[in-house]
Amino acid sequence: MTRVPVVCFLTDFGLSDPYAGVMKGVLLKDWPEAQLVDITHDVPPQDVRNAAFQLLESYRYFPEGALFMCVVDPGVGSGRKIIYAEADGWEFLAPDNGLLSWVLEEAPPQRVYALDIDKVVKGPVSRTFHGRDIFAPAAARLLNGEEVESFAQPAKDWVKLPFPHVIKTGAMWMGEILAVDRFGNLITNFRTNEINPLAEKSRMWIEINEKATIRGLSESYAAVEPGKLLAIGGSAGFVEISVRDGNAARQTKLNVGSKISLYFR
Amino acid sequence: MTRVPVVCFLTDFGLSDPYAGVMKGVLLKDWPEAQLVDITHDVPPQDVRNAAFQLLESYRYFPEGALFMCVVDPGVGSGRKIIYAEADGWEFLAPDNGLLSWVLEEAPPQRVYALDIDKVVKGPVSRTFHGRDIFAPAAARLLNGEEVESFAQPAKDWVKLPFPHVIKTGAMWMGEILAVDRFGNLITNFRTNEINPLAEKSRMWIEINEKATIRGLSESYAAVEPGKLLAIGGSAGFVEISVRDGNAARQTKLNVGSKISLYFR
Amino acid sequence: MTRVPVVCFLTDFGLSDPYAGVMKGVLLKDWPEAQLVDITHDVPPQDVRNAAFQLLESYRYFPEGALFMCVVDPGVGSGRKIIYAEADGWEFLAPDNGLLSWVLEEAPPQRVYALDIDKVVKGPVSRTFHGRDIFAPAAARLLNGEEVESFAQPAKDWVKLPFPHVIKTGAMWMGEILAVDRFGNLITNFRTNEINPLAEKSRMWIEINEKATIRGLSESYAAVEPGKLLAIGGSAGFVEISVRDGNAARQTKLNVGSKISLYFR
Repeated sequence: MTRVPVVCFLTDFGLSDPYAGVMKGVLLKDWPEAQLVDITHDVPPQDVRNAAFQLLESYRYFPEGALFMCVVDPGVGSGRKIIYAEADGWEFLAPDNGLLSWVLEEAPPQRVYALDIDKVVKGPVSRTFHGRDIFAPAAARLLNGEEVESFAQPAKDWVKLPFPHVIKTGAMWMGEILAVDRFGNLITNFRTNEINPLAEKSRMWIEINEKATIRGLSESYAAVEPGKLLAIGGSAGFVEISVRDGNAARQTKLNVGSKISLYFR
Repeated sequence: MTRVPVVCFLTDFGLSDPYAGVMKGVLLKDWPEAQLVDITHDVPPQDVRNAAFQLLESYRYFPEGALFMCVVDPGVGSGRKIIYAEADGWEFLAPDNGLLSWVLEEAPPQRVYALDIDKVVKGPVSRTFHGRDIFAPAAARLLNGEEVESFAQPAKDWVKLPFPHVIKTGAMWMGEILAVDRFGNLITNFRTNEINPLAEKSRMWIEINEKATIRGLSESYAAVEPGKLLAIGGSAGFVEISVRDGNAARQTKLNVGSKISLYFR
Repeated sequence: MTRVPVVCFLTDFGLSDPYAGVMKGVLLKDWPEAQLVDITHDVPPQDVRNAAFQLLESYRYFPEGALFMCVVDPGVGSGRKIIYAEADGWEFLAPDNGLLSWVLEEAPPQRVYALDIDKVVKGPVSRTFHGRDIFAPAAARLLNGEEVESFAQPAKDWVKLPFPHVIKTGAMWMGEILAVDRFGNLITNFRTNEINPLAEKSRMWIEINEKATIRGLSESYAAVEPGKLLAIGGSAGFVEISVRDGNAARQTKLNVGSKISLYFR
């Protein structure tokens, strides 16, 4: 079997417009046999934090050598840079708006470059669709084995979004909701590998709001009655708040950014 | 041309979260050139019946040898089994919750196995995302030509959802709506090849509710006026109730499970 | 690297039902290694104009030789023809309902054929799903190098939707909204390459309605304050009306077909 390049897409283009397909089309002109995988095109429009989190959740599950095309780009057409980063064998292209910051915090990059647009493409570039006009041609050249140096400059710095870390004050930790998924699971910023030992050694509970408290971590959704809240070690490495056979976001009215408290003793 | 493995995905993961992409990513680590096809990721959350029906509608249109990854899995993390079935040359992986039951009723399986999780994966497995942590690695091993016996036990039985068969009492048959598609077409459980001869030889009508009755089967949507109800032999082999240039679900207020009656004389 | 055939899909099938996957499945029976790309499956049900515009926006960004499967088909099962067109090296299959008309106006076809259904498929064809039963088998045969003549007749004419051209009366041009994308950008029928020189040489403004007027064209979204309306040369070659970090469709309440006026002096 021939090895084919794997290219992953993470955008806010949606699937109702031709934008995602068109960006792929440009790449296919050079690489018709590439393996194109969608992480999602449904990042809420211009929600760079959501994209940063989805990339953090997913990148390590793709093959080494995969190229990530991350285009959530409210600054398109302005002076914002487009950066290329290589980290642990994965490659990333993204606007320099913080989208890559959590991945690059977890996997410190071997090298980061800022694209030199004039060198990526000859001729006119749209003001609104750099995914098609810059990202895709740059990706085609990278897949072609061209050195990124031939169309980019080393970047010493890049925009960094602060990751919302847990605030730990004695036996009360303040956390927040990082993301809400389609099932209504509330992904918190409590790392399961930090919470698990606490939950095992002491009494631990999470206070959602005045009315709702969850005791301990559950082993599975089935560990509680249908309709009941639980906390569980989620697939992204963070504790998630869920409702068995239900929707925790709807039930708790919590949303991205909502604060929650974790107590133990 | 090299033959590539075809892997089909049927889940309730949605397309807004990275879950579907991540499950593919894990598979691509071993099989970057696989042909990955989405049946749908938009099964309503945890709606096993919907998934069972969508699989029944679609599996036979995929190439022999295709592997179906079916993950609608409210029992994830509990003791429910994950089963592998081979039927008529197709292969299926699904939680043992009834998802495969209608396909395996139509295409009796040559063999059914229950995965031995410990043999599929070494190391930790998340409690909430077996699509990524078990299904994808199992699929990679199957594609690799490994015998399923090496990580699974023969299963004598599996969960079976009763298919909602038509109740036939003389000249009145009671049926129901199996599914509603995006066009608002109401897919009934009346099999076209049973109804067609009736409609040809006798007067036949379908009673939707007190107000609406459809006479006979139409040859095409265009056979009635725009906005009018019709019954037509649908693409899944069942009679569908539709509105020309309109939406039958909205117009009739019927939904999955709604009862309808068919009369002939 | 082997070259693989590129097949593009543009339908109103949605992604909740198995229809798009099934159409691909049939094609994969013959061409498991084909590169399948979705332009969109989210054309509003039966909205042929929307499909015609999306195809116009996108086709030229796909590789030469790509085959476009365009299935928005309110007349399915009636006597409407299915046409094949070749234009500038791209190939198109679509119902003869105007879907191809804007592309074929821009890229006059070398040849157009009407499929002879009986020659495309032996055996029964559903009344409602020609994407699966006719388009996919026809595509498989085309990819196989079979001449279209072997299952189609030359077509002298085909259905043409009039493109909504700008009406130019002196210093006031009447235009309209061609499409609204997921970001709420309003894609007008003013061609940027016609408007740009006007905007550079004279004062130019677009009147949205009694309350809102936009002066000149902006260079990027960032050229105005957040929340403000702007006009910008869009990626499809048309002027678009947008709101920086916002949604112009919601803000202006304009929709597809809404009239707008452009003045210059």
